[in-house]
Amino acid sequence: MDERTYTAEAEPGDDVTVKGWVHEIRDLGGIAFIIVRDTTGKIQVKFEKDEMDDDLVETGLGVHRESVVAVTGAVEEEERAPTGVEIVPESVEVIAEADPELPLDPSGKVDAELSTRLDNRTLDLRKPEVKAVFEIRAEVLRSVREAFRSVDATEINTPKIVATGTEGGTELFPITYFGREAFMNQSPQLFKQLMVGSGLERVFEIGPIFRAEEHNTPRHLNEATSIDFESAFFDHQDAMDVCEHVVKSAYEGVAENCGAQLEALGLEDEFEAPDGEFPRLTYEEAIERINATGELDEPLVWGDDLSTEAEHVLGQAVGEHYFITDWPSEIKPFYIKDYDDDEEISTGFDMMHPSMELVSGGQREHRYDHLVAGFEQQGLDPEAFEYYTKMFKYGMPPHAGWGLGAERLVMTMLGLDNIREAVIFPRDRQRLSP
Amino acid sequence: MDERTYTAEAEPGDDVTVKGWVHEIRDLGGIAFIIVRDTTGKIQVKFEKDEMDDDLVETGLGVHRESVVAVTGAVEEEERAPTGVEIVPESVEVIAEADPELPLDPSGKVDAELSTRLDNRTLDLRKPEVKAVFEIRAEVLRSVREAFRSVDATEINTPKIVATGTEGGTELFPITYFGREAFMNQSPQLFKQLMVGSGLERVFEIGPIFRAEEHNTPRHLNEATSIDFESAFFDHQDAMDVCEHVVKSAYEGVAENCGAQLEALGLEDEFEAPDGEFPRLTYEEAIERINATGELDEPLVWGDDLSTEAEHVLGQAVGEHYFITDWPSEIKPFYIKDYDDDEEISTGFDMMHPSMELVSGGQREHRYDHLVAGFEQQGLDPEAFEYYTKMFKYGMPPHAGWGLGAERLVMTMLGLDNIREAVIFPRDRQRLSP
Repeated sequence: MDERTYTAEAEPGDDVTVKGWVHEIRDLGGIAFIIVRDTTGKIQVKFEKDEMDDDLVETGLGVHRESVVAVTGAVEEEERAPTGVEIVPESVEVIAEADPELPLDPSGKVDAELSTRLDNRTLDLRKPEVKAVFEIRAEVLRSVREAFRSVDATEINTPKIVATGTEGGTELFPITYFGREAFMNQSPQLFKQLMVGSGLERVFEIGPIFRAEEHNTPRHLNEATSIDFESAFFDHQDAMDVCEHVVKSAYEGVAENCGAQLEALGLEDEFEAPDGEFPRLTYEEAIERINATGELDEPLVWGDDLSTEAEHVLGQAVGEHYFITDWPSEIKPFYIKDYDDDEEISTGFDMMHPSMELVSGGQREHRYDHLVAGFEQQGLDPEAFEYYTKMFKYGMPPHAGWGLGAERLVMTMLGLDNIREAVIFPRDRQRLSP
Repeated sequence: MDERTYTAEAEPGDDVTVKGWVHEIRDLGGIAFIIVRDTTGKIQVKFEKDEMDDDLVETGLGVHRESVVAVTGAVEEEERAPTGVEIVPESVEVIAEADPELPLDPSGKVDAELSTRLDNRTLDLRKPEVKAVFEIRAEVLRSVREAFRSVDATEINTPKIVATGTEGGTELFPITYFGREAFMNQSPQLFKQLMVGSGLERVFEIGPIFRAEEHNTPRHLNEATSIDFESAFFDHQDAMDVCEHVVKSAYEGVAENCGAQLEALGLEDEFEAPDGEFPRLTYEEAIERINATGELDEPLVWGDDLSTEAEHVLGQAVGEHYFITDWPSEIKPFYIKDYDDDEEISTGFDMMHPSMELVSGGQREHRYDHLVAGFEQQGLDPEAFEYYTKMFKYGMPPHAGWGLGAERLVMTMLGLDNIREAVIFPRDRQRLSP
C-alpha cells in the first residue's frame, strides 16, 4: 500500500495522505468541511469551493458518510478546527463508498439498542467509547499474562473438545466428533490440575469456555473467556495472593497504558487501581455482616448459599474487592479440598467485586481415594474421568488455583451495564450470529 | 503453604525444605541417596544409615519413585553429587505416595510410544525435554503477542460457536446450541475481517480452531491454535512484512529466553533465529524451481497446486523460510483478492518452512459486489453470510492478513517429528481424551 499518515500525526507544514472514514460532512455554502476519522482520531478537510477544482469539490463533498477515503494535501494550522489543524486537499479518492442508509450511526448522535449494536459491531466499534472498551480488554489480558509471568507460571492451552465435562453432563454443549459424542469444555479445571503434577508445576491459561446455561442475564454468557491459574504446592491462601496480584496488575496496566481510552469512556477521573490488600472475610463473617445490615427479608443461617441479593448487600457494605473464604463444604464442588481439621469447612474461596463474583477457587483434593469417593458421591462415574483420576496415583502434589471471568473483570472495571458490552460478538441463548 | 526452596536455589550452608518428586533411589549399602526433582532441577539427598535415625532412613528410602516428598535439612558441598551439592536430611515427609507401577518412566530411561506418552501427559511432562517444548511454546506465544503489539495490532477474541463456517459446511464439527444447529469455528477469518472496518483497524487473535478433517497425519490436528492477523489499508506485501516480523520475533524470543530449554532438547548449538529477509518467490518461479530439480515424476504446469512432495522438493532447494506469492486465482479461496490488472492471479500467499506450510494469507476482497458474487460462485448462500457481507456496504477498507498455525511453528522450530508433540492434549480422529 502507499504511504499513509495517521490523523493524529499530521503536523502543520506536512504534505500527507490520510486514509479513513468520512465522519461528518458540513457544507456552509462557499466553504465546506469533511471530517475524516481513522484509528488514531479525526482531522478536518477544508473545501473552498470557488478556489478549488470542481471535480475535487464534487468528489469530496459528494461522498456519503462512513465511506472510506484517501485525502492528499497540505496540513495547515487552523485554530477553529477541532484538532487545531486541517488539510487543504489536492486530491480525494473514494476507496469504498458507503450506502447512504446506515443501520447504526457511528457518530453516536443517535442512540442504538444493544442488539442493533451487536448486529452491526463493525459500525459500533467505530465509536471511540466502544473501541476503548476493547482496547482496554486487550490491555487487561496483556497485563494479566505479565502478572502470571512474574510469578513463573507457564502459559498452557488445553483442549476445548472433551469427552466429559468438569462436573458431569449438565450444562454442556454436545458436539458430534467423528461419529462420537463429545462436548465443548466448560472449564480447563481438570487439565490445569493435571499440569501441576507435571514438571511445569504452575500454569495459566486464557481461553474460551462454553456453558449451556439457560439463564439470560446481563452478567452471564454462554461462551466466555476464562483466566485460569493453578499451582503445585499452593494452598488457598497462596492462590488468593496470586489472584489479588493478577487483578491489581490488570487495573494498573489499564491505568498506565489506557489514558486515552479511559478518557473516551469518561472515566479518567474516577478510575483507580485498587491498593491495599483485598479483605479476606470468612463465610461466617460474611453472613454476619449481611444480617447486620437488616436488608434481607430473612436473615441468613449457616449453610445458606449467598443469593445475588445477599452478594449485593455485602458488596455495598465492603465497598472494595474482597474474598469470601471458609465456605461450608456442602456448597463447594467436590474437587475442592476441605480443611484437614474440619471437614465441614472448605478451602474454597470466591473473590468478589462489590457488584458481583469474579473468581472462584480453592485448594484441590489431591488424594486419590478422596477424589474417587468425591466423584461417586456426586453420582458421577469415576471410570469416565479415569484419564484424570489415575494421574493422582503417581505423585500428585497439593495444589490450588482459581478461575476468573475476563468479561466480568472488564465489565466491573469499566462499570458496563451488560456483560455483552465486554465481548465483540457475544453468544447467548438467542444470539448465535454474527 | 510452608516455605519452600527450589532445588536450583539450594546453596551450601542453607537450611532448606525442598519439595518435589523422588526421581531416583540409589542404595549403596551403608550409604544411600535419593534424587529429588522439582520444576527447577534436581538435588541429591544423602542417607548415612548408621549415623541417622532409623525412622528417617526408612521413610526416605522406603518411598516409591515419583512420590512427592518434602525434605528438610542442611545443604552441603559435595563434588561427587550431580549438582555439586547435597542435602543431609533432618526430616523427610511423604506428601503423596506414588504407585510402584508407573505407566511411563519419567526418568526417560525407558522409551515410550507417543500414544502412551499422550495418555500419561502428567508423567511425560516430568521429563525435561518434554517440559522444554511447552515452555518454549509459551515463549513463542509471548513473543508473537509482543510483535503484534509493536505494530499496534489490538488483541481480539472472536466466538468459537458459529452459525456458519468460513467456507461453508464442510469440515465443520456440528454442535447443538439450545436446540439449534451450530458449528465450532474453523477460522476467525470472517470475524477478524469485520474488525478492520471498525475503529480498531488492525487486530490479532491467538485461539483455538476446529477442523473436522478426516486425515490423520503427523502434521494435522483437529483442534489447533491459530495465530491470526488482519489489518485495514494493508496489501499482501504489507501483510507478509508483518508475518516475517512475527515469525522472526518468535525465534528471537526463544533464542533469548529459552537457553536452558534448548539445552534440554540438545538444540543449543544448532538453534538459530532466521536473519535476512525471507525470499518471496512467485508461484511461477516456484514451479520452475521445482521442475529444475527433476525430482518430480511429472513436471508441474501452471495451475497445478503444490503437492506435499513438491513443497518438500522446493523447501530443500530454498533451505530457509520463504513466501510463495502470485498464485493462480483458481487455487485460492474466493475471499482472497485477485490482482486488479490480472484476475487470473491472486494476491494470496503462503509462508513456508523448508519442511511444510506455516502460513496462508492474502489481500481480501473488500468490494461488496465481488464478495457476494464470490459466495455464489462457490455454491454458498450469501444470505447465510449476510451478517458478514452486509458490513462491506458501509465503508470496508482494503485489507490483508494471514493465519499461522502455532503448533506447526513450534514443530518446525524444534524439529519435532509429530505435531502432537507440540500440544499437551492433542485431538485427532482417534484421540478425544485426556
